Order: sequence, then structure tokens, then C-alpha cells
Amino acid sequence: MPTDVLARLQDALGASVTTDAAVLDATREDKSGWRSASAPLAVVHAASVDDVQAVMRLAHATGTPVVPRGAGTGLAGGALASTGAIVLDVTRMDRILEVSEADELAVVEPGVLNGDLNAALAPLGLWFAPDPASRAISSIGGNIATNAGGLLCAKYGVTREAVLGLAVVLADGRLLRTGHRTVKGVTGYDLTSLMVGSEGTLGVIVEATLRLRPLTPGDVVTVAAVFPDVEAAAAASAAVTAARIRPAVLELIDAAGLARVAAHLGPVALAGTPLESLAPGEAFLLAQSDGGTADAEAARIGEAFASAGGRVTVSTDAATGERLLAIRRSMHPALAASGQVLIEDVAVPRSRLPEMFRAIEVIGRRHGVEIPTLAHAGDGNLHPNFVFTGDEVPAHVWAAADDMFRTAVALGGTLTGEHGVGILKRRWLADELGEDSFELQRGIKALFDPTGILNPGVMFEASAH
Amino acid sequence: MPTDVLARLQDALGASVTTDAAVLDATREDKSGWRSASAPLAVVHAASVDDVQAVMRLAHATGTPVVPRGAGTGLAGGALASTGAIVLDVTRMDRILEVSEADELAVVEPGVLNGDLNAALAPLGLWFAPDPASRAISSIGGNIATNAGGLLCAKYGVTREAVLGLAVVLADGRLLRTGHRTVKGVTGYDLTSLMVGSEGTLGVIVEATLRLRPLTPGDVVTVAAVFPDVEAAAAASAAVTAARIRPAVLELIDAAGLARVAAHLGPVALAGTPLESLAPGEAFLLAQSDGGTADAEAARIGEAFASAGGRVTVSTDAATGERLLAIRRSMHPALAASGQVLIEDVAVPRSRLPEMFRAIEVIGRRHGVEIPTLAHAGDGNLHPNFVFTGDEVPAHVWAAADDMFRTAVALGGTLTGEHGVGILKRRWLADELGEDSFELQRGIKALFDPTGILNPGVMFEASAH
Repeated sequence: MPTDVLARLQDALGASVTTDAAVLDATREDKSGWRSASAPLAVVHAASVDDVQAVMRLAHATGTPVVPRGAGTGLAGGALASTGAIVLDVTRMDRILEVSEADELAVVEPGVLNGDLNAALAPLGLWFAPDPASRAISSIGGNIATNAGGLLCAKYGVTREAVLGLAVVLADGRLLRTGHRTVKGVTGYDLTSLMVGSEGTLGVIVEATLRLRPLTPGDVVTVAAVFPDVEAAAAASAAVTAARIRPAVLELIDAAGLARVAAHLGPVALAGTPLESLAPGEAFLLAQSDGGTADAEAARIGEAFASAGGRVTVSTDAATGERLLAIRRSMHPALAASGQVLIEDVAVPRSRLPEMFRAIEVIGRRHGVEIPTLAHAGDGNLHPNFVFTGDEVPAHVWAAADDMFRTAVALGGTLTGEHGVGILKRRWLADELGEDSFELQRGIKALFDPTGILNPGVMFEASAH
Repeated sequence: MPTDVLARLQDALGASVTTDAAVLDATREDKSGWRSASAPLAVVHAASVDDVQAVMRLAHATGTPVVPRGAGTGLAGGALASTGAIVLDVTRMDRILEVSEADELAVVEPGVLNGDLNAALAPLGLWFAPDPASRAISSIGGNIATNAGGLLCAKYGVTREAVLGLAVVLADGRLLRTGHRTVKGVTGYDLTSLMVGSEGTLGVIVEATLRLRPLTPGDVVTVAAVFPDVEAAAAASAAVTAARIRPAVLELIDAAGLARVAAHLGPVALAGTPLESLAPGEAFLLAQSDGGTADAEAARIGEAFASAGGRVTVSTDAATGERLLAIRRSMHPALAASGQVLIEDVAVPRSRLPEMFRAIEVIGRRHGVEIPTLAHAGDGNLHPNFVFTGDEVPAHVWAAADDMFRTAVALGGTLTGEHGVGILKRRWLADELGEDSFELQRGIKALFDPTGILNPGVMFEASAH
């Protein structure tokens, strides 16, 4: 059967089908550090909706699993090759099909990189707000498939709020259109939102109609501070929310993370920043205000930080702001310099951030592992990191992660704020959702993908057919 | 069987069950002007989640249809009594269960009125942004069931964007919890968004976790103008969007509507407003700017209005602003003074507003009916109105509405922007969605409500079981 599928695939799609070992091998990984057990049957580089439909029709007819894949920057193993599967790569579908200034929308193919779209929009004074930290390398299709978040979500929303409509190739190859080109629209159930975050398990996104925003006018003001400990920093972030301030960015780094960042950047890069005279145990908090009232807002944030015990730097010039933000941006490179990094992604209600930080410390001690943590403090989304050596995530790391997920859910939170479930977190899915929701979700999966060929093993354990 | 159901209902729910003829009769109507053919079997005034679960268990066991109903202010016939049905009235479930200032969220029962919630939140400096024009009389449960819009959506979003999570009683009485208390959360499919706008056909909303915003600081500035014709007004609204301005409110009234409003309000109320010297054919456009940069934004809007040929009034004091907004608010009372009003609800991409206004004029002439029209111009949502006498919508009005829906869809729009499908628009649902989407939506309905007892006839034609 596999040989037959491959022959039919090559017959239908010609040179778009690759069996080159290096290309196949590359689809076994994403940016999670996870590596799948085996290579796929083939990779198809789809260049059009027709290509995607041809692949799905053939997969449907032959019962072949299909793994939709974009730029491969996922952090949860949501687009990894598996035995006998076709990896349906849409990175060549990278055209911006339309930008309507009058309607403030763009129609794009799934392979367009987030950063490339925004580079094209900026001269028009427009902006696609979802800004995952990966925006320079991640594609819009993947942003939508995971409902990607980022640094700006508390003020500007997550990906779902910026998607007006989709074109999706269904499991049997039919083309479904969802949503609208209008701001409002309530005809029928919201299939667009159902597709956003569905991680390639319900269909293959081949086109997206995106809601744009006017670029926020005025300069950005950056407020950075160092606090005696992470709880003081968390308290300062809570004080900002309590003062009814909603900055564009509010990012927190704990002591373990900050020490690594400081060591990685070195004294020259840190001169003049609050990290210049870093003491052990100190934590970092950075806010950015934008829009016409940025100066006044940043002043209030600075006061809140100082009242909570912070050593504060306020910067109105862009270059200094960038240097301060570079501290935040260096977190992942600093960790990656010393090993493999498993980035976790829990979220808790903002008020529970101090408790969650305390819990992470306790969990780290219990399992004998350091857990340097970064948080999008403005929206309660934490990225606790595990650094390890070797190809496999060690058992004690998974045990610590398990503790952490359960703690987040017990605090009213969730096991994934923005990365998705993928294969890495599927074992905890039912725990968080509860049995009734889990069964309904499986029912939705079965409705859209009755033979289970779409990204099997992602979100749900693969079932036998 | 009905007698048996009623006896069992009374046995289970006691005095919460009403068979009083006047109470039953009142559930045959909403604010659409539509009246259902018959009264229900009974009305249950549920006071708790337990009550709702008891009703659904009994309905499930006996195959009895259930019509979930809130304040009864719907405009699409989405909550009307039918023969043999139990009307499940949740207006007594009207408690605000929790307001978390730290997490900027509220947990409420479905019967809380939108206006009452905001009155309770205002002293805390917080705000539930969805603001349907009915906010003083409509309930949160209904706002969610229809994904209600309103005047502020282009800037502040629709109801869906303000709902973090729900508790929903399923068709068989089980209690489902969806969503999160966190800003971000991507564990599994987005069942919360699936429930928002589902018009009581997938479950009964018994609790909602709502996302709040800080009250926008500063004064509101109002810019009102009268234009020679509706196309000039539509062009002015497009010029505002093109200038990358996103006012909080941007409302348009066409000539037919404006003439009725002016006659209704009378010269005293209009003194000092742009309607003081209204000429035939003139149209009205009103913008409101808020936030710290309201003055500068309003000045730019005033310039755009003047450039497009408007006679402009800018008002920074609240009392004058209210008088100007009263012109917009008088549209429905002005129409209702002369007959029954069927309020339609199409939406088009903003750039197509002038075309849609032209088409409405042509359609009116073709069918010999005046169609006074109001538009949320900032988001392309139009409310063309039909005024008629008698209980039944006349055939020529439905014919004109049919023309209008098809035109809106042909312009890339939708037949309902914010009111919902209900029973009034179900006949056009498949036309807009297309066959594949329609079938998937019916599949979702069947998954959540396999025996078809939840609000039968709403959104989809009732099928025999």
C-alpha cells in the first residue's frame, strides 16, 4: 500500500513530491526539541489550493495520514512526521493575495511569514497584531493553527481575534470557506474560531482573511526594573493591572532566568541597564506603553514599579528601549546556549502569578531541577523552561512538568496558553477538559475527520482504524 | 404525553412551573415583531443551575422541545414559544457571582441585564464592552447566545471577544464547562466560541466568565454632520477609516430615516443641532472619540466630514454630545411610532457601504416600500427597516428583504451582522453558508443535540424525529 500511495502521489503531484532523505528527516522536528520516531512516506511541497486538495483526496481514498506543516517553528510537536504519513508542507503557498486598506483586511496564503506580512503592511500604516516571539520565522497558517499568542495579547488580543475567515481543505479534499470579510457576522456557528487553534486536526488551512489594525501612532516608552525577588516583581505587575493600566507589553523574568541572561549578555551589553549591578535572587519586569498617552502611562507604571521595590529605568528613546527589550529577547538564546530547552507554556489568572512562581520553585526543588521562567505577566502566561542534555526529555523533567501542569490547572489556569497541545501535552488534555468536554471534542474531530487521517496523534492519542 | 410531561415538570420543579395563559402568551413574542403560532406547554422560571439541569433531564427523557429564553429582546425570533415546548426562562438567574478586579473578569448568571452589570462595574473603574443598543433591557445570556454587537464594535469588539468561558447545560442535562479564567488558553477546540452565537441550539448557558476592560479614561468628544445625500455620508465614513482613525462610535442614518427622526423629535429638540435646517435627501453621520487622544482624533474626523461636504458640529461637553447621540437613539422610536417595524441586519465590508445604500434604494423602489436605514458605519453593519401595519410581515416586505440579503452576500457580506438567524432568517442560511458548511453545522447540532430538543426551528428548519 505505501508504495502504491507514493506512486499515485507522484503521478498526481509530480515534482512537488519529495522522498529525499534529508528533507524527510527535517520534518521529524519542530522547535520543541522533540524528535519523532520515524520519517514520513513523503513530503509534498504544495504550491496551490489544488495541490492541497489533490493530496487530501488521495489520502482520503487510501486512508493515508497527513501532517499539515508550515514553517516548523511549533513548540508542542504539532506538525511532526510519522510512519507512513504524507507531510503536507505549505511553505511555498506564501503569497499575500490582497490587502484592502478600506476594509482593513488582508487575504493571505498560509505560508506567509508573520514578519513578512507586517513588513508589507507597515508602509500602508497597517498592522497584523498577533506577534508570537517567533514572528520572524513562523508562518500565518501555523499562527492560526495554534491560536498563537505573544507579547502584546493583553492589550491587542490573540490570533483568534485577528482572523475574519478561512479557506480550509477538509479531510476528503472539499474546500470549506468560513467566516466573513466583515467585522461582524453571526450567520451560523463560528467555524472560523473552531478552526483557529485546531492544530491541523480538522482541516488544512489554505487561505486566511485577516483583520488588520491601524499602526499605533506615537513613540513607545519602555519601563524596566529589577526587584529583590520574583514575588515582588509579580506583585508589581499585579499593581499595574490593579491601577487599570493595560500596557502593550508586560514581561517578567525570574531570578534563575535573569542570572542566565546576565551571564549570556555580559557586562558590556548590560551597562546602563537595571541589570548592571544584579544581585542574586533579583527578578526583572519590563513594560512598554504605546499610543498617544504613552508618556503618562509609563510614568504611572514607573511609580507602581518603584512602590513595589523596583530599581526603575524609564526610556523614551527607541535605541535604549530596544536594549532593554533585548534582555527579554535573550532569555531563550541564553538557555539554549547550555543545552536542549523544553519550553513550557502554562497560564494562570493574573492574580495567581505569585502563587504559581512559588509553586514552580517548590516543584524545581522537589525534582532537583532548575526551572528558569519567563512570563507574559500582563496576561498570566508563564514559560517555565527545562534545560537538559541529550535527545530525550529526562523522566524527572516530565515529572516536574506534570506537577506544574496540575498546579496551573488547580489555580484556575491551563496547561497551554499559546503553544498548543500537539503530541507533547495530549496526555494531560482530558485532565484539564474533563470527560464531557473531551468526548464532545472527540466528536467534533470525528465529524470533520471521520477516518482519522488528519494529523493523527496530535491533541488526541491516535486511535486504530 | 404532554399532560405527563407537565405533571412530571411540576413534580420536579414545583412553583417554578407556570401555565398561566398570559405568561405563556408573552413568550410567543420578542422584539422582532414576529409572533409564534402557538403558546408553549409551560414556562419554567429557573432559579438555579439545578433547575435548568432538571428541566433538560426531563425534556431529554420525554423528547420534549425546550426553548431557552432570557429577557425576550431578540430581533430574529430566536427564543419564541412553540406547540408542546417548555420555555426555559432564565431571567431569575440574575446574580453577579463574582467580580475579580485583579483578573479583570466577572462571573455572572445569564439573566443579568447588560446595563445592570455595567452599573455594578462602573464604580470599580471596569466595564463589559459589548453594548447592544438594547443594553438596558437585554440579558447577558442572550447577548452571548446571539454574539450581540452594538455601536462600539469596530473599536472594542463583539461579545465573543469578551467571553472567557461558559457553563452550559447540555441537551441531556449534563453540565459542561468551557474556556478559562485566563486571557490566553489553547487547550483543545474553542467550544466557548462555538457556543457564542449558537442561539440556544447547542445548550443552555447558565454561567459566563466575562472579560472586563478598564473604563476608558477622559471625556468623549462627539462629531456630528449632515450630508447632501447618503452616499456622501458613506464616503465620509470611509474617509475616516482610510485615515486610519478608529472612533469608538460611527453611526449613519439615511435620508428616509433622518426625515422620520426629525419629524419625531420636533424643532425644539433639534435646535442647535445639524438637523435644525434639514433639507430633503440629507443624511446624518455621528462619530464619538474617547480616550486620552479624543480631542485630536475628533478634530481629524471633523475635517474628514467637512471635506466630504458635511455641515459639522463638534461637541466636547457631555450634554451636547448626549443631545446629538439622541438623534441616533431616536431612530427606532421614530419608526415604531408609525407601525410595526421589521429591523434587518445585513453587514458588508466597509468599502461596499455606498453600494449597499444604493442597492437598498433600488430595492425599495422595485418593491414599492420605503426602507429607512441606520448603519454602524464603522463596521459595515446596516439596519434597513421595514415599517408596516398589522401582525404579519407583508409578502412584498419579505420579497424586498430577500433581495437585500442576496445583495449583501453578493457584496461579500452577510445576512446578519449581530441579531442572529432565529426563525426569521433560517431560510437564507444555506444560501450564505454553502452546502458543505451547512452540512457541517448540522453535524455539530446533531452532536450536541442528537434528539433535536434544543430550540427546534431556530437556525435550521425543525426536522422530524
